[in-house]
Amino acid sequence: MQNLEEALAAFRNILGHEHVQTDEPARAAAQSATFSTTQRVPAVIMPASRGEVQECVRIANRHKVPIYPVSTGKNWGYGSSVPVRDGSVVMTLSRMNRIVEFSEELAYITVEPGVTMRQIFEHLRQRGSKLMLSVTGSTPDSSLIGNICDRGMGAGVNAERAAHLCDLEVVLPTGECVQTGFSRFAGAQASRVNRWGVGPHLDGLFTQSNLGIVTQVTIWLAPLPKHHQIFIFRLDDDRRMEGVVDAIRELKLQGIPRPSVSLWNDYKLLSMRRQYPWDEASGQTPLPEAVMAKLRRAWGGAAWLGGGAIFAASRAEALAERDIIRRALGRRVDKLVFIDRRAATIARLLKRPIQRLTGLDLGEIVRAYEESPHLGIPMEKNIRSAYWRKRVSAPEDLNPDRDRCGAIWLSPAIPSAGNHVAPALRAIQRITRAHQFEPNMSAIFATERCANLVVAIMYDRDVAGEDDRAMACYRELFHHLAEQGYLPYRLGIQSMDALPPSHADYGSLMSTLKRALDPNDILAPGRYDFRHEWPEGSDTLSRPTGERAGTLTERSQREAPSG
Amino acid sequence: MQNLEEALAAFRNILGHEHVQTDEPARAAAQSATFSTTQRVPAVIMPASRGEVQECVRIANRHKVPIYPVSTGKNWGYGSSVPVRDGSVVMTLSRMNRIVEFSEELAYITVEPGVTMRQIFEHLRQRGSKLMLSVTGSTPDSSLIGNICDRGMGAGVNAERAAHLCDLEVVLPTGECVQTGFSRFAGAQASRVNRWGVGPHLDGLFTQSNLGIVTQVTIWLAPLPKHHQIFIFRLDDDRRMEGVVDAIRELKLQGIPRPSVSLWNDYKLLSMRRQYPWDEASGQTPLPEAVMAKLRRAWGGAAWLGGGAIFAASRAEALAERDIIRRALGRRVDKLVFIDRRAATIARLLKRPIQRLTGLDLGEIVRAYEESPHLGIPMEKNIRSAYWRKRVSAPEDLNPDRDRCGAIWLSPAIPSAGNHVAPALRAIQRITRAHQFEPNMSAIFATERCANLVVAIMYDRDVAGEDDRAMACYRELFHHLAEQGYLPYRLGIQSMDALPPSHADYGSLMSTLKRALDPNDILAPGRYDFRHEWPEGSDTLSRPTGERAGTLTERSQREAPSG
Repeated sequence: MQNLEEALAAFRNILGHEHVQTDEPARAAAQSATFSTTQRVPAVIMPASRGEVQECVRIANRHKVPIYPVSTGKNWGYGSSVPVRDGSVVMTLSRMNRIVEFSEELAYITVEPGVTMRQIFEHLRQRGSKLMLSVTGSTPDSSLIGNICDRGMGAGVNAERAAHLCDLEVVLPTGECVQTGFSRFAGAQASRVNRWGVGPHLDGLFTQSNLGIVTQVTIWLAPLPKHHQIFIFRLDDDRRMEGVVDAIRELKLQGIPRPSVSLWNDYKLLSMRRQYPWDEASGQTPLPEAVMAKLRRAWGGAAWLGGGAIFAASRAEALAERDIIRRALGRRVDKLVFIDRRAATIARLLKRPIQRLTGLDLGEIVRAYEESPHLGIPMEKNIRSAYWRKRVSAPEDLNPDRDRCGAIWLSPAIPSAGNHVAPALRAIQRITRAHQFEPNMSAIFATERCANLVVAIMYDRDVAGEDDRAMACYRELFHHLAEQGYLPYRLGIQSMDALPPSHADYGSLMSTLKRALDPNDILAPGRYDFRHEWPEGSDTLSRPTGERAGTLTERSQREAPSG
Repeated sequence: MQNLEEALAAFRNILGHEHVQTDEPARAAAQSATFSTTQRVPAVIMPASRGEVQECVRIANRHKVPIYPVSTGKNWGYGSSVPVRDGSVVMTLSRMNRIVEFSEELAYITVEPGVTMRQIFEHLRQRGSKLMLSVTGSTPDSSLIGNICDRGMGAGVNAERAAHLCDLEVVLPTGECVQTGFSRFAGAQASRVNRWGVGPHLDGLFTQSNLGIVTQVTIWLAPLPKHHQIFIFRLDDDRRMEGVVDAIRELKLQGIPRPSVSLWNDYKLLSMRRQYPWDEASGQTPLPEAVMAKLRRAWGGAAWLGGGAIFAASRAEALAERDIIRRALGRRVDKLVFIDRRAATIARLLKRPIQRLTGLDLGEIVRAYEESPHLGIPMEKNIRSAYWRKRVSAPEDLNPDRDRCGAIWLSPAIPSAGNHVAPALRAIQRITRAHQFEPNMSAIFATERCANLVVAIMYDRDVAGEDDRAMACYRELFHHLAEQGYLPYRLGIQSMDALPPSHADYGSLMSTLKRALDPNDILAPGRYDFRHEWPEGSDTLSRPTGERAGTLTERSQREAPSG
């Protein structure tokens, strides 16, 4: 324990006692995810500035104590704040929550890791800004940088987040600090507006990686559209999926629509609206098809809804795009509707009388138009779906880790072509059903050529055995899809070692890079760590799966005769 | 010389005698750029496959002989195929000219470094493809990968080339070979369509770098527009420049137009049309203002022309965009015209009679519409401008290196805002004029927030003293702009050491990376090489500027007692 204790003393010296937590509740929170984990966290440290992060990294090196940085720790469905390897000290960056710079003219915002999506949204609203951030499908209280570092996808324009940023400030595993792009030059004018700078482009090294701690990023915002329309389409079953996916790709290749297009299946839609229908299903799981058929009527009985937004600079452009989308999609889907300003206004006016007369809620039309995530308005309902199989209702203050929600997300990248997407969706359905879970699926078409799927396995961690059954389902999905060549574009902490073998020299390069940048192997060992060979001495960190090996501190004690 | 001789023998053994050139003409060609250089090239080697590249790299390591890879060597204006450091063996990849894969459906093409822009254009045309490549402003015979590795900009859609590619195959300086993105997994389906893969994103490490040799890239193509229009606008002088730049940025932020927008000044326009008007100027340089005023009448007397294209999926969309552009630009420029299909058709019909009657050439309208570089049609006239100040006319077979054209290009990145771009352009004008050169300038607005300027200093290398005078002009421009915070986004070989100091830890990171990936310092030493500290032993390579130090082989001989 000696090196850990010494490190903790040094952390306290730099950060103050209150920002080095070793009490059981703090450690328990840091050890909790939305699925079963065994990693133990000896402490949680909370630096408040880049300088403090650097000091902490130097301490970690001095005492050979691994640290695992998280921004706000809300990586729900992928492991929350739980480190990949047992014995890592969690470094939470939520106190670094400054909005460093904002430009309405050049449409960017420069933030620290503790800055949340909600905070940016409020910042823009308070200033009457005409700009928007591509928001997340997860909680508005998640960190923008956290999402970036995992290469998460947003919604709307600039949804492929990692392609719309620049100017990273990164603390290296040795405690040095670098700026990427032009920011490395004092007084550079284009540092917030140009991605590449001059020389090797480094940004990519620090996403999905354990080669640095990102302490600042400039993210590009988009103007709110002068005119917008929302479109929603329905697929009554899977049979027309191929044609729809091809039509979306053909549209996106022509730049239409500018924001992302999404597809949600019935289970996904239901889980965003309500928790599991325990009464209707008479307590049975998985949800019987007959019950689903009845509930699906809430959105016209469709197996899938799709949708997107038209962003236009004039009404004529919006109408022209609408026609193009109608021509491309109209005959390939079962129903396609557009909601424009007029429809939303009428719906707002008629909302109350129609509700009184018919019970129908036109408010959905108003909300679809005015509160679309495509407009950068963060929403909570996606993450509310983590409470799907809970028997108690979701609290105001959502916290799936604490509330023992079971949620495992799997996100394969699939070519945006019907003959790839449709069979992948069928396989996901088949496998989740075989494991007695609902196939909760969505697809986002943010780029021209690639669909990003998200499969959510939702369960109740309080039901005995469910943790294991859900993980077994996840693993079968993962391996089946990987065998078909559909690899995940983002990994949960349980899968950092689960990828198929890569061509040989890749692991060697990763090993070289890690050894060069992090000689003491202190930064997030195991996280997106594809060395496939562990440097000498790294066996002081045990892997969480399999046999319960000693923790870092136990092992170090055994190995250090002076301990 | 011993290590070089041994290396050459080993290269010959692998590549065959004819692909290891040490004769004077071959070396002289490799040593020639469009400005003065002193670097000597001991040999030119020409591998034909990735495997041969790997073998050559291993030989270079074994014999500690530095190699300097070029694709086709047409990096005109920035140093052609001349290595940054004296004594480097040039590795030409022009024999690796396979189009490895092409997908009309997913709109990509996978190529080797020897594949030229023209080759891709022909490939697409022969297949009746509905896709296009963003073409270069340089020669159609330049390499696509070469341009990518220098992060060159194209025209039209996907003009920011480095943002529209994936799936690099890279031979590392140690001879290993890695694939980036998902390509590292056998059978991965999304490897040609997804940039990021899973894990650290490595593409950026290998552009503007000496950390690897890119032997294959997948580049994304764009559909040819179903409807297009060309727009051209005129600025009679510089006074309205600020407003125009702001208007372009505001349009681009709204996604309009999808292709890049360009600005060319009068000198640039003239140099694309003809060589220096020696007669009109009575042999004087720089071009007298009165002469320019007369010549400028060819395009209506404007100091600047700007232009772009509307890419639309329907006629209605094209018309809507046209209105948006007209509203945004119309009142800020001196004249704005749109050329649509109808105008081009009429011009084609009337071309002959109008020419007979008035001498006016309506063919320009037809060509502007049908042969726009925005449509992926490569053109030669940009590079023809390198012959600007030559006294003899440009030959059919353009080769500015051979023909002793003087051309030095400087490319600053400037925030896309009037209060940045306008003063930068004024400074460039003032400085080039003070040095007796014409201010030949263009700006490309390919992205939302950043303008890429290109200044071309054009001269005749056969005029005594001009090499030095042109370089002095270039250096003053470089340093003046850098002092204002306008750094170049791309460097000529003469400027790899010219950037202002960067924040301290950056050089240390570069040093760590280079030492880890290229322990023998054999790959393109000095090229985008920002270590600012040279590893032990690297002084075997002399820098080309200043004192003529010994070449690699001379020095090695002195140092190696057995030599």
